[in-house]
Amino acid sequence: MEKRLQKQLDFILEIDKEKNIFRQTHLSGHGRNENDAEHAWHMAIMAYLLKEYANEEVDIAKVIMMCLIHDIVEIDAGDTYAYDPEGLKSQKEREEKAKKRIFSLLPDDQKKELIALFDEFENYETAESKFAHAMDNFQPLLLNSSNDGGDWKEHDVSSDTVYGRQKKTALGSKRLYEVTDQILQEHIAKGHLKK
Amino acid sequence: MEKRLQKQLDFILEIDKEKNIFRQTHLSGHGRNENDAEHAWHMAIMAYLLKEYANEEVDIAKVIMMCLIHDIVEIDAGDTYAYDPEGLKSQKEREEKAKKRIFSLLPDDQKKELIALFDEFENYETAESKFAHAMDNFQPLLLNSSNDGGDWKEHDVSSDTVYGRQKKTALGSKRLYEVTDQILQEHIAKGHLKK
Repeated sequence: MEKRLQKQLDFILEIDKEKNIFRQTHLSGHGRNENDAEHAWHMAIMAYLLKEYANEEVDIAKVIMMCLIHDIVEIDAGDTYAYDPEGLKSQKEREEKAKKRIFSLLPDDQKKELIALFDEFENYETAESKFAHAMDNFQPLLLNSSNDGGDWKEHDVSSDTVYGRQKKTALGSKRLYEVTDQILQEHIAKGHLKK
Repeated sequence: MEKRLQKQLDFILEIDKEKNIFRQTHLSGHGRNENDAEHAWHMAIMAYLLKEYANEEVDIAKVIMMCLIHDIVEIDAGDTYAYDPEGLKSQKEREEKAKKRIFSLLPDDQKKELIALFDEFENYETAESKFAHAMDNFQPLLLNSSNDGGDWKEHDVSSDTVYGRQKKTALGSKRLYEVTDQILQEHIAKGHLKK
């Protein structure tokens, strides 16, 4: 087999491991913890269906690819809970190292392409990146909301902490942030999320 | 909330259930059974990385969306093992019913759009559909090959049966079928797949 195809297949088999990286979010119906691959799949379909709510026109194929690959680094770096201040401190360094190892399995042109896409997502500057991040916030919010906010209760987070992250959804979609705000207010009123 | 957005969110929450539909394929490293959402995520990234091997030029964004949504009907219809003749008989009917129920949760324009995409995949006629099907065959083959063909052994399938399905990969990608053939021959030689 030609070296190029062998490298592509090596990468493809490597990322299978993302299915074993479990997140703090639980599936709807008070299900088990969700893994990164499922989360990325869900985000990609959401991006496609909700693109009309993006603040700016987006290249939706690019958003979808960002959603699909944004957590591959967690194969080495692990999942960092969005409301874990200690984990967040070392996250960047762990993920940079993982990025180099994992994407280097690919042929050089595809390595550069996927790293550029990952970096664009991380840099949070383009319209596509902001909308993909909105999905990254909104997807677990919908699941957690369907489970009466169980993930917030488990980690004893406050509404201020949750708003600190979720408010950035407005950078990608003002409308979806309004919905986020409405959902959070309902859960605060019901006592699912402490003030 | 406007009715349109409510319908979109209802559909998004409904498809979370795809993460509970488990397949016969096992994750690499002799892992647990794979679920449909993970399988779809993996296929979508594979399609993007392997598009240069498609027989014809494909609209890769369309292929990716086909990969992402092609198993949503299994939320109701369940997974039908590729080498289960009894299950395959009733598969079409079960999946048609599921298609109507699940996609009808969406606003009408998006319902039509996703059903058209699903039907295009099922009809196996366009270049995009053929390449998406090649991914649907090649993805579990790579996992099963990495696990010494354990899934074939578990179901006691013969190489004729496996070739019956896998040969259709050539309709989407002659090169990836050559690789498929090479992998199958290696497993036959090692006794992982019976003649």
